[in-house]
Amino acid sequence: MPKTLWIVLALVLMAGWAGAADLPVAPNGIALYPEFMSWKPLAPSYREDKGHIRLITANDVALAGLRAGKNPLPDGSVLAKVAWKAVKHPAFPVATEPGEFVQVEFMVKDSRKYAATGGWGFARFVGKELKPYGKDPGFVAECFGCHTPVAAKDYLFTSLPSVP
Amino acid sequence: MPKTLWIVLALVLMAGWAGAADLPVAPNGIALYPEFMSWKPLAPSYREDKGHIRLITANDVALAGLRAGKNPLPDGSVLAKVAWKAVKHPAFPVATEPGEFVQVEFMVKDSRKYAATGGWGFARFVGKELKPYGKDPGFVAECFGCHTPVAAKDYLFTSLPSVP
Ligand code: HEC
Ligand code: HEC
Repeated sequence: MPKTLWIVLALVLMAGWAGAADLPVAPNGIALYPEFMSWKPLAPSYREDKGHIRLITANDVALAGLRAGKNPLPDGSVLAKVAWKAVKHPAFPVATEPGEFVQVEFMVKDSRKYAATGGWGFARFVGKELKPYGKDPGFVAECFGCHTPVAAKDYLFTSLPSVP
Repeated sequence: MPKTLWIVLALVLMAGWAGAADLPVAPNGIALYPEFMSWKPLAPSYREDKGHIRLITANDVALAGLRAGKNPLPDGSVLAKVAWKAVKHPAFPVATEPGEFVQVEFMVKDSRKYAATGGWGFARFVGKELKPYGKDPGFVAECFGCHTPVAAKDYLFTSLPSVP
């Protein structure tokens, strides 16, 4: 192989490695999807008990599946739930809007890899540092447990909101 | 002009006319942007006084402008605010989610056409029928009046939420 090809190959490998090394990875191997705010919106949500305001976004595979009424969603579907502290708008206090970033969570569909948890891989990244949540892969029991009541809806709480 | 060209022209005009006729139009001439749920999300919001949960989306021009810190936003920017009745999730009542669709509102930037109202054209479409709000173009006084306290922020209440 000519020398330049080796150099190009080395650069490509380094770029790939640096990119992956930059992203936080959950204990079950799921890396952060940095494009979560560039996906299309599914729905807003609000948690009065936690004082959080949230936004659920979906990648194109998930959104197309939801629009087609697919249940379960196809492999490759990814949903993100972004949470912020709910704060009152300084210029209009009855309006509650996003304040400080709290965390982002993902559900990643791979029906074989995550067969034990309804085909979904779970991951949560907390705070400005996007610190991966959980000490070991067992953390998903908490996620899956809470999402089990909506098993009939492919373990999803959120559905497409009604729009004329 | 050959006959076929006339037919093609007639078909194109008819298609354009039929498409436009389907869309509701506000008293100031702004037609509904039907793609508002396919724009990218700006932020969620919650109005405790009205019991509404909302989603603000932005077209690509507006989003690029916001990300670049532009103030005022460039012509061609369009923001949508979608409102639903806030309902408690049946499977998880401390979570508030979108229920019935209430309305969708738009702010359309055209610094010449809407010079009198900060460069923004306003429009609101109410209920399942997407009924245009306002009896005559004067309805915008209500919108503009309420957005005037945030004139320094290009009349926008919502900014890009903080994301790491
Ligand atoms: C205490 C219950 C509970 C636990 C634990 C929980 N969730 Fe959820 N999750 C919910 C509810 C309720 C929603 C609906 C949206 C909302 O209320 O914010 C939701 C929504 C989501 C969504 C958006 C898709 C959907 O189902 O609506 C994702 C993604 C998500 N959760 C990921 C996770 C991950 C990852 C974990 C664990 C690290 C987790 N969840 C743990 C209750 C829970
Ligand atoms: C009583 C005050 C009030 C009036 C009247 C009002 N708005 Fe707003 N508007 C707000 C507030 C507060 C927000 C911030 C988001 C929220 O609270 O839902 C907002 C947000 C918006 C947004 C999203 C961009 C932004 O500024 O955050 C649009 C689009 C919008 N309004 C359009 C309209 C239109 C169109 C009308 C009139 C037909 C109107 N508004 C009238 C208070 C008002």
